[in-house]
Amino acid sequence: MANEIPDIVIGRLPIYLRELTRLAEEDQKTTTSSHELGKRLGISSAQIRKDLSHFGEFGKQGTGYHINYLIDQLRDILHLEQVWEVALVGAGYLGHALAHYDGFARHGFRITCIFDNDPEKVGEKMNELVVQDISEMPAILQTQNIDIAILVVPASAAQETADCLIQAGIKAILTYAPIHLEVPTDVHVSYSDPVVQLQRMTYYLSP
Amino acid sequence: MANEIPDIVIGRLPIYLRELTRLAEEDQKTTTSSHELGKRLGISSAQIRKDLSHFGEFGKQGTGYHINYLIDQLRDILHLEQVWEVALVGAGYLGHALAHYDGFARHGFRITCIFDNDPEKVGEKMNELVVQDISEMPAILQTQNIDIAILVVPASAAQETADCLIQAGIKAILTYAPIHLEVPTDVHVSYSDPVVQLQRMTYYLSP
Repeated sequence: MANEIPDIVIGRLPIYLRELTRLAEEDQKTTTSSHELGKRLGISSAQIRKDLSHFGEFGKQGTGYHINYLIDQLRDILHLEQVWEVALVGAGYLGHALAHYDGFARHGFRITCIFDNDPEKVGEKMNELVVQDISEMPAILQTQNIDIAILVVPASAAQETADCLIQAGIKAILTYAPIHLEVPTDVHVSYSDPVVQLQRMTYYLSP
Repeated sequence: MANEIPDIVIGRLPIYLRELTRLAEEDQKTTTSSHELGKRLGISSAQIRKDLSHFGEFGKQGTGYHINYLIDQLRDILHLEQVWEVALVGAGYLGHALAHYDGFARHGFRITCIFDNDPEKVGEKMNELVVQDISEMPAILQTQNIDIAILVVPASAAQETADCLIQAGIKAILTYAPIHLEVPTDVHVSYSDPVVQLQRMTYYLSP
């Protein structure tokens, strides 16, 4: 069944989870509806109901969703009932920012190692972690049994570094390098490129 | 016609542009095909032809696409024949990384002002720009006629800051704050949240 669910649906689940958590923590709410959730997220309530129906029956006509229950279910579906260890590759400005991002820890991700190939950066301390030489990466990743890497190296080094990560057993890569990565079908890649995001919006702006 | 093209198609155009530029600059190629482009990007050639057909007839059966011509056309479609000035709001670690990101300048975006509300950051120099007090933001944005902002403030301040940007005439916001923004229909928002991106991938990983 899992294989049949479109990835675009999976991609919306973390957004539902984020908003539900906000409703519970900040607004102190205990129940919500697909209508309320949709209104807050700019997504139709029908879409939300359809997305969730792939995984079961979470709401009741009239009473809607129990927020904490739905949060638990989504966390279970997305495999967030554990802490995921993450390797950070690249200790430049962006690597530095990511190493200090407290959102990871709060949501079950923990950067446990940082690598760079620049001798001036190796040995530097970033948020309690010491930057390690990238040549030691394969051995360290294998002993630590890490599945996820965040790639913040220049475009010219991205494919080679990704290959190395994959060979060391990494199964999911969040990459900030502005280049498409070729990876085996069992490896998942998520791209973050601010230029691509800005260019998508300038289409709609008057030049 | 422009209104009828799905946003998901628009979102792929910058990715085509990025790969075409790479083919021209690094591989020194002058022509390509939807097949080659698709293979490099993990997108079907039929999808690429269909996407581009929204905007005209760019390739020829047999010879494919002239890369530089297609680059020019895509730049024109995406309104990239000008330099877009960008306001950066938030001078924390990630703001710092974005202020120093050289990919913006290379692709026609120029951060021309940086704002923060922290008195310790105001006055600090970041890549030739001086961080200005956020209270001066509305006046500065209006005199500079800036359409695009990058938002890197905490989630708790994001909506209020976005409202302020929109009131000052901003039409496109790239936000790194982990919260959905409510904006008028003529304002475009693009989201970047590493936690959401990681959670989308953990779905596919064995816990």
